[in-house]
Amino acid sequence: MPRSDGRASDALRPVRVTVDFQKYAEGSALIEFGNTRVLCSASIEDRVPGFLEGRGQGWVTAEYAMLPRAGTTRSQRESVAGKIGGRTHEIQRLIGRSLRACLDMRALGERTIVLDCDVLQADGGTRTAAITGAWIALKRATATLKQRGSLTVDPVRMQVAAVSVGIVKGAPLLDLDYPEDSHAEVDSNVVMTNTGEFIEVQGTAEGKPFSRARLDELLTLAEKGIRELFTIQSEHAKL
Amino acid sequence: MPRSDGRASDALRPVRVTVDFQKYAEGSALIEFGNTRVLCSASIEDRVPGFLEGRGQGWVTAEYAMLPRAGTTRSQRESVAGKIGGRTHEIQRLIGRSLRACLDMRALGERTIVLDCDVLQADGGTRTAAITGAWIALKRATATLKQRGSLTVDPVRMQVAAVSVGIVKGAPLLDLDYPEDSHAEVDSNVVMTNTGEFIEVQGTAEGKPFSRARLDELLTLAEKGIRELFTIQSEHAKL
Amino acid sequence: MPRSDGRASDALRPVRVTVDFQKYAEGSALIEFGNTRVLCSASIEDRVPGFLEGRGQGWVTAEYAMLPRAGTTRSQRESVAGKIGGRTHEIQRLIGRSLRACLDMRALGERTIVLDCDVLQADGGTRTAAITGAWIALKRATATLKQRGSLTVDPVRMQVAAVSVGIVKGAPLLDLDYPEDSHAEVDSNVVMTNTGEFIEVQGTAEGKPFSRARLDELLTLAEKGIRELFTIQSEHAKL
Amino acid sequence: MPRSDGRASDALRPVRVTVDFQKYAEGSALIEFGNTRVLCSASIEDRVPGFLEGRGQGWVTAEYAMLPRAGTTRSQRESVAGKIGGRTHEIQRLIGRSLRACLDMRALGERTIVLDCDVLQADGGTRTAAITGAWIALKRATATLKQRGSLTVDPVRMQVAAVSVGIVKGAPLLDLDYPEDSHAEVDSNVVMTNTGEFIEVQGTAEGKPFSRARLDELLTLAEKGIRELFTIQSEHAKL
Amino acid sequence: MPRSDGRASDALRPVRVTVDFQKYAEGSALIEFGNTRVLCSASIEDRVPGFLEGRGQGWVTAEYAMLPRAGTTRSQRESVAGKIGGRTHEIQRLIGRSLRACLDMRALGERTIVLDCDVLQADGGTRTAAITGAWIALKRATATLKQRGSLTVDPVRMQVAAVSVGIVKGAPLLDLDYPEDSHAEVDSNVVMTNTGEFIEVQGTAEGKPFSRARLDELLTLAEKGIRELFTIQSEHAKL
Amino acid sequence: MPRSDGRASDALRPVRVTVDFQKYAEGSALIEFGNTRVLCSASIEDRVPGFLEGRGQGWVTAEYAMLPRAGTTRSQRESVAGKIGGRTHEIQRLIGRSLRACLDMRALGERTIVLDCDVLQADGGTRTAAITGAWIALKRATATLKQRGSLTVDPVRMQVAAVSVGIVKGAPLLDLDYPEDSHAEVDSNVVMTNTGEFIEVQGTAEGKPFSRARLDELLTLAEKGIRELFTIQSEHAKL
Repeated sequence: MPRSDGRASDALRPVRVTVDFQKYAEGSALIEFGNTRVLCSASIEDRVPGFLEGRGQGWVTAEYAMLPRAGTTRSQRESVAGKIGGRTHEIQRLIGRSLRACLDMRALGERTIVLDCDVLQADGGTRTAAITGAWIALKRATATLKQRGSLTVDPVRMQVAAVSVGIVKGAPLLDLDYPEDSHAEVDSNVVMTNTGEFIEVQGTAEGKPFSRARLDELLTLAEKGIRELFTIQSEHAKL
Repeated sequence: MPRSDGRASDALRPVRVTVDFQKYAEGSALIEFGNTRVLCSASIEDRVPGFLEGRGQGWVTAEYAMLPRAGTTRSQRESVAGKIGGRTHEIQRLIGRSLRACLDMRALGERTIVLDCDVLQADGGTRTAAITGAWIALKRATATLKQRGSLTVDPVRMQVAAVSVGIVKGAPLLDLDYPEDSHAEVDSNVVMTNTGEFIEVQGTAEGKPFSRARLDELLTLAEKGIRELFTIQSEHAKL
Repeated sequence: MPRSDGRASDALRPVRVTVDFQKYAEGSALIEFGNTRVLCSASIEDRVPGFLEGRGQGWVTAEYAMLPRAGTTRSQRESVAGKIGGRTHEIQRLIGRSLRACLDMRALGERTIVLDCDVLQADGGTRTAAITGAWIALKRATATLKQRGSLTVDPVRMQVAAVSVGIVKGAPLLDLDYPEDSHAEVDSNVVMTNTGEFIEVQGTAEGKPFSRARLDELLTLAEKGIRELFTIQSEHAKL
Repeated sequence: MPRSDGRASDALRPVRVTVDFQKYAEGSALIEFGNTRVLCSASIEDRVPGFLEGRGQGWVTAEYAMLPRAGTTRSQRESVAGKIGGRTHEIQRLIGRSLRACLDMRALGERTIVLDCDVLQADGGTRTAAITGAWIALKRATATLKQRGSLTVDPVRMQVAAVSVGIVKGAPLLDLDYPEDSHAEVDSNVVMTNTGEFIEVQGTAEGKPFSRARLDELLTLAEKGIRELFTIQSEHAKL
Repeated sequence: MPRSDGRASDALRPVRVTVDFQKYAEGSALIEFGNTRVLCSASIEDRVPGFLEGRGQGWVTAEYAMLPRAGTTRSQRESVAGKIGGRTHEIQRLIGRSLRACLDMRALGERTIVLDCDVLQADGGTRTAAITGAWIALKRATATLKQRGSLTVDPVRMQVAAVSVGIVKGAPLLDLDYPEDSHAEVDSNVVMTNTGEFIEVQGTAEGKPFSRARLDELLTLAEKGIRELFTIQSEHAKL
Repeated sequence: MPRSDGRASDALRPVRVTVDFQKYAEGSALIEFGNTRVLCSASIEDRVPGFLEGRGQGWVTAEYAMLPRAGTTRSQRESVAGKIGGRTHEIQRLIGRSLRACLDMRALGERTIVLDCDVLQADGGTRTAAITGAWIALKRATATLKQRGSLTVDPVRMQVAAVSVGIVKGAPLLDLDYPEDSHAEVDSNVVMTNTGEFIEVQGTAEGKPFSRARLDELLTLAEKGIRELFTIQSEHAKL
């Protein structure tokens, strides 16, 4: 079954990265997967949350938001609602967990890195684009600290990237755009390291349950896509 | 490596179910996995959320909370904080998705089933206990409606149960208690149907990434535990 | 006029107490007055509110909440509403005042006891059941501290219990259930000590004003019921 | 024991009433008990809360607040805190209940009367001053409606007034000012009708329990004070 | 075109000031412009906001609110809404900026003056009445501190007053009442010092843009009115 | 006195406009004044606020926000704070008023245009950049509606643009960047139409009051800058 943009079922959308989009941040990258555009920044603060004080290690936390007119209809700002919605919470917890996994927290020292992922335009796969872009922002931020002499060792131990995969009309597809995602029978987000291991695997039945064989197909597809993302990330990391 | 309560690595904790714990609810079950105790109720309301009005189908939503003194230290009520935390949002979205998957929404008609899962005591695995217990409450509620003549067909199409699995000190374990969970290298929650398929698979590296082989071991372990839970559920369902 | 459950006008409903329902709390009791079920726990924290710091005395505070499906229809969680309602505030202030009255705050030392009263099922008289059950949880918590050697003297100086009384169709009744309560012309909550004195007297006209003679009848009825509650409390206190 | 302002133990502070302080309200009264000043207004709205719609009867609700600099130190605005405190909730519920008791809700028709009680200056007894002043505002508002021809019968069936009484250093005192109130062993608020009956009786032990004899003394004292308040109210009601 | 109260186009409404309306505040003034009544108080606290700590200077902040029944219809309390509205924020920021401009912050020392401006009755021009009245409260508060010996120099360097001006049916008018304000084509608020200079100029087109010539006419009218307000302020300042 | 970027005192920073930055919006423009970057979008909804229903006219409202890492230090999200700050309220009210002034609300019909102005990078003048960019987004949105045949007449009657001006070290400057703005003695925002008239004039003393002569200089400077902005806007409007 052909995809609306003519892509093969195992092809990523065109991925573009613009580094330093926010010039005041320690690290910043605008990442695009087709029409999905997420602005990621890494801010380094010289303090840690209360539960880590005095323990000689750092922390990473993430925040995710969508501009009101990122999509085809306008959505309400969470600041106007006065609270952060469940979907946002779920996504920013995923981003935070994913990026914490690649860092040596002792090498970071008592610092917090805040990863802000703001979706400027949304066409599916915003959370996985955010993770992939946040890694670039994070890596650029730690490189900046090393250049400034604040760090002697770069605490980023490996690469982390993510992609969405799903079953649409019975076919496994890589990197779903929004129309595909809204018709998916199974929706999955996979986060991996460049050592070929998983940080997070999430598979969700949307409408009908799936077998273990289906899950395996999706994981194989995700691995292929993520390997390509590691190459793109490397081109924009600051070493 | 022996477990603190002497269980085998592939053994569930003792599971107990007390149905009709809340006598006014359409369906209710107190479920216990060892010291973890979750009170589940299903309330049926004759209306649907705005986005479903007039479409001839129903909806299921879930809410999850923990009593302040469910655990070893007292936690603040979310009503006092004035907002629902990220972890709660993540869990109640998971419960809702999991239970929606087993229902024929057209057969339910324009009704909403609200699943309340309140943790009275917490010793690990509260979200999977909640899913397993909520299914019993849900099934008892639809049976009640059928008895009353409000429904001609029971909209519950299959059984849904869930369990946690994880890697602790290198060993895959079924149904982690809290001390095990807090030392897990990989933490996974699996939701399945009694047709042997997955509704949700979540695997998260806590500390170090994991291979696909490891994921496979965990899924096998989860399948074993969930099959046992289906038997227990059947004993307490109202047919 | 006969009562729906055949009780005499001056009879309590069957009262049951299950201690240690929440095993991690310093003190805990599930108390039932007929179908009303309130889970009470006492948590001891080694700090006091700001206004008491450095004054060598302790504090007691209470929180009250109702599970969404405690009653015949589902009520919204206060965490979802984002705020605590007026009725809840009124009740938890009453519980806190009532229990503070029985404690020697200097003997307690710079500690705070938090009393959580969660209504699992509601059939009238939840606030007075909460006070009566919270005293058991409190007493068990201070006994625990004494056992551990943290306290040399038990700061609980006397017993505190409470009951509701009211005028229904012209007749004074003890311990109203929900249907009685919703038809009461006068509604009263009385909190007493086992020295035979009052901690709190509240009488409210619901529909028509009442004379001093009526108030006297109600207080006499309340005293009778509370004396019976003291006996029940004693059986479950840890000495 | 002499009182700081030389009053007898059974004497009210000087009570002053300024009607129509807020000229746009249907009824308004500024009431002063010594240095306590409460601005009361009654607003009539042509609708009822949802639970009363279509039932041919009206409703009364009350709101209470204190200006930040009503007292000797500045207190935070509840609008800044983002929520209404427990004490405020307790007081405005008391005011609402008290005034509802004097109204014929069918004669009022499907209207809501909102009673706003704003404390401009606080020196003890603000809630009882609010009830006493709110009755004047309410009565003036219904008189206004009758004048306009909107009502044929005045729905106010009787007078309602309130006063505080307490035990200070062992002596029963009428109408406590703030310094007296903060040293009271027993604190009581009494709401009565001019038919000599009670609408609300609240007695609270602050520090030590009290006997029924003590309660009787307090109620007698309150009755005396409230009879004097009925005379003052009558002078400012619009008939 | 004659004004409804017969005033000349360049005439203020009758302005009345009652000082010490709130006797517990360090400084207080009830100011009236015709039917507009604003109660202003100045509270002095011995601390500064975090961003000024240890810098040897003080701060002034303002809060503004309207009683629910200040106007012809009842408005909701912001404490009930749970948040402060945009208009309130805009006004209290204007009051704060305006009064900060007249103070020598070093002479004030590490103290914060909180200006509370509560509108008891609203008939147009509440924000400019608040600024004019707040200056009196502020000046009386610093005089109090000087009397107590806490300050050696009065930090108030000059007078600040404000008035509204506008274009109504093509005519420039001084000190608009509410009916005039709601028909104004241009609405302007001007804050000046008694040295004849501006602290704030705000001109807003309500319906149609205005020329610079029009702006000049309005500023001339405002200057005339503010000069008269300085005389009134002087009569009520405590020197 | 030379400016840090070598600009003349009456020169704008380089202004760049990228239209259609958010492809799903009816109208969108990214506007840059030097390092200040504001993303503006116009969303058209087929409904009006309650107070305008059934009156045959439309409405325009604006929302303004800043990404956390727009500036040199990270600021907290307002969604995390749970409320919108005073500065944000003040700015979005200004944007809304300014753009409403250029529209024929009857020609718009019963539609609401929501203008979202999100600051991606902040270096002074964000509110005036937002107004200038929002006009482009608005104009493109109404042109889109006209193209689609939903509107027969374009309701945009004139151009609206804005700029900041100020006095820095005694010198009037056009279009202040952040370092200039933070040292300004007088800070002014001016909104004009291409008919040469004012929509809003705001002049604020930051530190010391200013004379009318100074205000005149600033207005002249603002007029010059705004005329240049009209030319830039015209190049990006869709006609």
